[in-house]
Amino acid sequence: MKKISPLRNKVLKVELQKKIDLKTKPLGALGDLEALAFKIASIQNTKSPKINNPTIVVFAGDHGIAKRGEVNPFPQEVTTQMVYNFVNGGAAINVFTKTNNIHLKVVDAGVNHTFKNDLNIINAKIAFGTKNYQQEPAMTLQQCQSAMEKAGDIITNIHSNGCNTIGFGEMGISNTSSASLLMAYFMKKPITECVGSGTGLDSDGINKKGRILSEVFNKYKPQTPQEALATFGGFEVAMLCGAILKAAELKMVILIDGFIVSAALLVAQSIDENTLDYCVFAHNSNEQGHIKILDFLNSKSLLSLGLRLGEGTGAALAIPLLKASVDFLNNMASFESAGVSSEIKKS
Amino acid sequence: MKKISPLRNKVLKVELQKKIDLKTKPLGALGDLEALAFKIASIQNTKSPKINNPTIVVFAGDHGIAKRGEVNPFPQEVTTQMVYNFVNGGAAINVFTKTNNIHLKVVDAGVNHTFKNDLNIINAKIAFGTKNYQQEPAMTLQQCQSAMEKAGDIITNIHSNGCNTIGFGEMGISNTSSASLLMAYFMKKPITECVGSGTGLDSDGINKKGRILSEVFNKYKPQTPQEALATFGGFEVAMLCGAILKAAELKMVILIDGFIVSAALLVAQSIDENTLDYCVFAHNSNEQGHIKILDFLNSKSLLSLGLRLGEGTGAALAIPLLKASVDFLNNMASFESAGVSSEIKKS
Repeated sequence: MKKISPLRNKVLKVELQKKIDLKTKPLGALGDLEALAFKIASIQNTKSPKINNPTIVVFAGDHGIAKRGEVNPFPQEVTTQMVYNFVNGGAAINVFTKTNNIHLKVVDAGVNHTFKNDLNIINAKIAFGTKNYQQEPAMTLQQCQSAMEKAGDIITNIHSNGCNTIGFGEMGISNTSSASLLMAYFMKKPITECVGSGTGLDSDGINKKGRILSEVFNKYKPQTPQEALATFGGFEVAMLCGAILKAAELKMVILIDGFIVSAALLVAQSIDENTLDYCVFAHNSNEQGHIKILDFLNSKSLLSLGLRLGEGTGAALAIPLLKASVDFLNNMASFESAGVSSEIKKS
Repeated sequence: MKKISPLRNKVLKVELQKKIDLKTKPLGALGDLEALAFKIASIQNTKSPKINNPTIVVFAGDHGIAKRGEVNPFPQEVTTQMVYNFVNGGAAINVFTKTNNIHLKVVDAGVNHTFKNDLNIINAKIAFGTKNYQQEPAMTLQQCQSAMEKAGDIITNIHSNGCNTIGFGEMGISNTSSASLLMAYFMKKPITECVGSGTGLDSDGINKKGRILSEVFNKYKPQTPQEALATFGGFEVAMLCGAILKAAELKMVILIDGFIVSAALLVAQSIDENTLDYCVFAHNSNEQGHIKILDFLNSKSLLSLGLRLGEGTGAALAIPLLKASVDFLNNMASFESAGVSSEIKKS
């Protein structure tokens, strides 16, 4: 895997801040959009950034643990059913990508179903769902490596078609469990602090999920990030990790969605510490672990709408803010060009 | 003034909630967007709402107090200069309305400048700026009434051209002072709790602004909402109030921007208590009084981006969320239509 370049163009940073500060507005009055424009421009290493062909990639995969229905209110089949829903245009992510003019790609990372080839699905299937980590690691190291590489190839392809801004989503019944385990591992937190309601567990359900995942967590001693990912991951989570790393390597703007994608980022970040330089956080998920991951990464989201759906829905909703930030940097007048007086200087 | 109808279609509310809950997502998983879709549909009295020709109207006016430069870091001339900036397409609101495909109208409510007729400005000028309320009320009751009526006519016209969703913005050097005075009056708060940095005062500046406005506040005893508006308002603030009332009467979705627009809403709400039924709050302004107004109105904003610019910029940035909410209500599949299993029922 290639090294990801840190963003260290000091001259650009000074010039960018000057460009932002000379716009016809009080200093800092565009708040988070100023920081966002600054970040996107830094990633693209230019004072005139652009959002080209924004794309959301949804990785779908099944989880061995889901078959028992102990940690998930919805049955495993819902992963397959939702992939069909994506293909038929009926899911929330279909709606929001259409509303905001975003390309949508759906990837079969390892769903427990054979999809016909003529469907609009990228076939990157590793297997028909992971193993149940209550008994054995979710996948082999080789499968994990393969998932990351396949995802990287998908991103390279999307990038070569002119996309410079990419958001990620996921679908996989029980994948909040994977995310909680990874969060506990990479953030060194008790698993109970990492477990939430997922698609809708009540407090008894959450307690049970905590007990089950605590047993799973204590069963293994992964020695490397990849080993942790293989042990606790889903195929879609491994692909998210590989996709994030590749997108950062390609200097794309990466929109991080909610809890699952952020957990995949924890893995990516521990593999290459410069990954975070390329990430913009779309929203605060209502899944309780998410805000803790954001704090751990010293990061802040653009939106806080109480979403807990996944699919990349938060990323899709944040895209107009990315466009707005880039547009103000490129198209707003400066005090000088507009003939607007700046602040009265007090003596 | 006509009465504003409260939203009391109980049958629709039940049907709407059912429609939302049957979408292919866990219950409540779209968070605030669910409440937003519900609200827009309730306003439009339909299960299939639409956002038609969304429009932002920016009212601009000058303030007598601004001439002294005691409460405002920018000179009064900036109001005029910024109106030219709007006309020339260089301001933040121009950029954001363009990014998000929103119509933009600029209204001269009472700027201290004569604009040529061939400019793209709606001329509704009441006078060349208000009087300084340090000496006398900002405007007469007749001027206030005239401002509200002219604004109502502008909204009626926009509505008759097919717009059903309207956001408001403002430009007026010193208008945070007006808003603070109105907030103190309608919320019965000490003026010092209502004063903030505006376009960029430091803490000394804020303290001075508080002292000056405290004197102004104590000088008058307005007996009616209109009298308070005439005493403390700007022409653009009075127009905002009239525009909000007319838009609610016409059953439009009203996007409330930041501090100034919310202060105008306080006046409108005290004139007709059903106004709030038609309002969606776009963002939490960084102007410190704004969040207190939202709390007072028991309301929550969609965005929290640290903006403090006015012009309707927050409203413009929130429009894509309104579109997304309506689109999910209209276009997302239901569990039944998509063949997706709903939750496992526990015994």
